[in-house]
Amino acid sequence: MEGLKRAILKRGKIYPNNLLKVDSFINHQIDPELMQEIGKEFAHYFEKYQPTKVVTIESSGIAPALMAALSLQVPLVFAKKTLPSTLMKDDVYSADVFSFTKNVVSKVVISQSLLDKEERILIIDDFLANGEAVLGLKKIIEQAGASVCGVGILIEKSFQSGRGKLEEAGLDVYSLARVQSIENGEVTFLA
Amino acid sequence: MEGLKRAILKRGKIYPNNLLKVDSFINHQIDPELMQEIGKEFAHYFEKYQPTKVVTIESSGIAPALMAALSLQVPLVFAKKTLPSTLMKDDVYSADVFSFTKNVVSKVVISQSLLDKEERILIIDDFLANGEAVLGLKKIIEQAGASVCGVGILIEKSFQSGRGKLEEAGLDVYSLARVQSIENGEVTFLA
Repeated sequence: MEGLKRAILKRGKIYPNNLLKVDSFINHQIDPELMQEIGKEFAHYFEKYQPTKVVTIESSGIAPALMAALSLQVPLVFAKKTLPSTLMKDDVYSADVFSFTKNVVSKVVISQSLLDKEERILIIDDFLANGEAVLGLKKIIEQAGASVCGVGILIEKSFQSGRGKLEEAGLDVYSLARVQSIENGEVTFLA
Repeated sequence: MEGLKRAILKRGKIYPNNLLKVDSFINHQIDPELMQEIGKEFAHYFEKYQPTKVVTIESSGIAPALMAALSLQVPLVFAKKTLPSTLMKDDVYSADVFSFTKNVVSKVVISQSLLDKEERILIIDDFLANGEAVLGLKKIIEQAGASVCGVGILIEKSFQSGRGKLEEAGLDVYSLARVQSIENGEVTFLA
């Protein structure tokens, strides 16, 4: 998606260790109009699967997932990183997600009351690197007897293993910006 | 706002200790169309102050705040509960927020790069009970030399001290649903 790529080049910042920082328009400050465009683009691509729900993980996935859900006219569920005080351990589906950035395993949970059998779930997330978050959500969704009909990503680090793993798991992955490399302070996209 | 009140009566659940649970349409599963209506309502009420930015706290504030920001055509910033790996302690404004529900003090932070002097900030949050979260955000915003032009709340627990404290601090508080009491499994709204 050209609008997102332009925003990355113009507003993204490269930090030491070739870390791409997008916190002025995606994951700390959010550009609502860009998110609306992103939501429409995901809806346009994934409507062929007639998703019944959008699922993401808090917090940075919520904005693009909400806009996709609005365009698709379906509810959004966001997985939580801590067990809400109103839920017991037995009330949730959960999965462990390993974060390479932070080098920790964390649990993500979704209330069992919010996922039904036979649902077709569209997963949305801001970054795809090693695919761990999406695979964790997939595990949760399958615990409910539902299935994943697609995965929408804002920024894919195509030089990491995530896309390969998700495709191996049979998932249709649509990334709006596929980053081929981040080197010497410059981002290059796959054609 | 009638749409939100109807949703609370129809889809909210009352738990022991008169805890109102709205996780099927506000803070775990989200109803995108209701959030869009809510965003428009906040924009309609607060546009008189010409806010330059909307600020909320992750995670449940993000959806309504995003929709308000979209309607107002301004950016949204969400305060984080943990220091992002790309930010140092000196790069952020921070405040301690006491949670009565969890009986803990937690820190919330916003990158200094995302708040400017002279900005007029609209704060949005899902619940107002004791007002601690909003007062924490106000502190952060004032550290930046900016000011709070209004506070938009989805559900106000009018039987708690939050509104009083915020009004004392000179804030214009607009709550879409003002809950007078939760008793014997029933929610009553202020007229």
